[in-house]
Amino acid sequence: MGRWEPNARGRLEQAAMELYAERGYEQTTVTEIAKRAGLTERTFFRHYADKREVLFAGSALLQERLVGGLAGAPPSAPPIDAVAAGLQAAAAVLDERHPQARQRQRIIAANAELQERELVKLASLAAAMGEALRARGVSEPAASLAAEAGIAVFKVAFVRWVDTIGARGLGAFVLEGLAGLESLMAGGRP
Amino acid sequence: MGRWEPNARGRLEQAAMELYAERGYEQTTVTEIAKRAGLTERTFFRHYADKREVLFAGSALLQERLVGGLAGAPPSAPPIDAVAAGLQAAAAVLDERHPQARQRQRIIAANAELQERELVKLASLAAAMGEALRARGVSEPAASLAAEAGIAVFKVAFVRWVDTIGARGLGAFVLEGLAGLESLMAGGRP
Repeated sequence: MGRWEPNARGRLEQAAMELYAERGYEQTTVTEIAKRAGLTERTFFRHYADKREVLFAGSALLQERLVGGLAGAPPSAPPIDAVAAGLQAAAAVLDERHPQARQRQRIIAANAELQERELVKLASLAAAMGEALRARGVSEPAASLAAEAGIAVFKVAFVRWVDTIGARGLGAFVLEGLAGLESLMAGGRP
Repeated sequence: MGRWEPNARGRLEQAAMELYAERGYEQTTVTEIAKRAGLTERTFFRHYADKREVLFAGSALLQERLVGGLAGAPPSAPPIDAVAAGLQAAAAVLDERHPQARQRQRIIAANAELQERELVKLASLAAAMGEALRARGVSEPAASLAAEAGIAVFKVAFVRWVDTIGARGLGAFVLEGLAGLESLMAGGRP
């Protein structure tokens, strides 16, 4: 590292998000992001591989919490309770960043390539949850079904949460989604 | 159209699938596909926009059957029964093409770009199902939840069906998946 650059990562992220929102993701260059943040391009590349990674750098933490929450559920918990624990742990990460999540969602919705990348991220999260369930002794196809359904609930809850300006956390939307899906699968009309 | 080219589309598809399997998707050119099929490049481009489209040309029919099956369920049917009817209609299309689906799956599994495209296809199917459910009067978030969960079941069922050499149809795996997810959501250990 060169000179002392306090919170370079956070500054770069904020600059990138501002520029993506102002002039569009495609039109923004790394040079402009670094300039807006008052940093050099070299510093940008010490923190992010490219301008897309700024939007997906949080995926690793999200997956870590999801899997950690799931693995931390009591060994006797049924699979869906372990999934719910994982989703709640992931939701807690995002709840600290509602304005950023909102802005990020708008940027992604405006760009097909970013939407594809987001789908890849969700598929990776589902795969990681499936693996964590199998590690708990859940057999196939139950592990894959519970993982894919968990991500389906998370996806729907996320869209509702991001659209909401209010005190309601993502975790509340996740719980509502799990209850709603339970009712639907039993033939209900929630 | 130029001269009479019986089943040009089917011949191009078969030639493409053979070449993708033999030498890999990335290494195959449109020129080679046309040559193997005994047709011209011009004929190829009359049927497919590019070599990727050969693998995804069936998506439109799949979506049509999915939505048609769902819309055709009795108006009084609960949302999940309408979803099940849609999934069964889609499964019937694929059941006629098990060897091709198997080969296609192997090709897609070997290429990250194709996997992304497949995720986009599944997301489009889920969006179309959500819309068809809302057209039946199902409110949000139930419509999105039922649609996303339906696609989750279909995805897991598809992987199991494609891995199976046997008389069991995709529809049977779908039914098993729906029952499995119902049990999981209710706290079961299927």
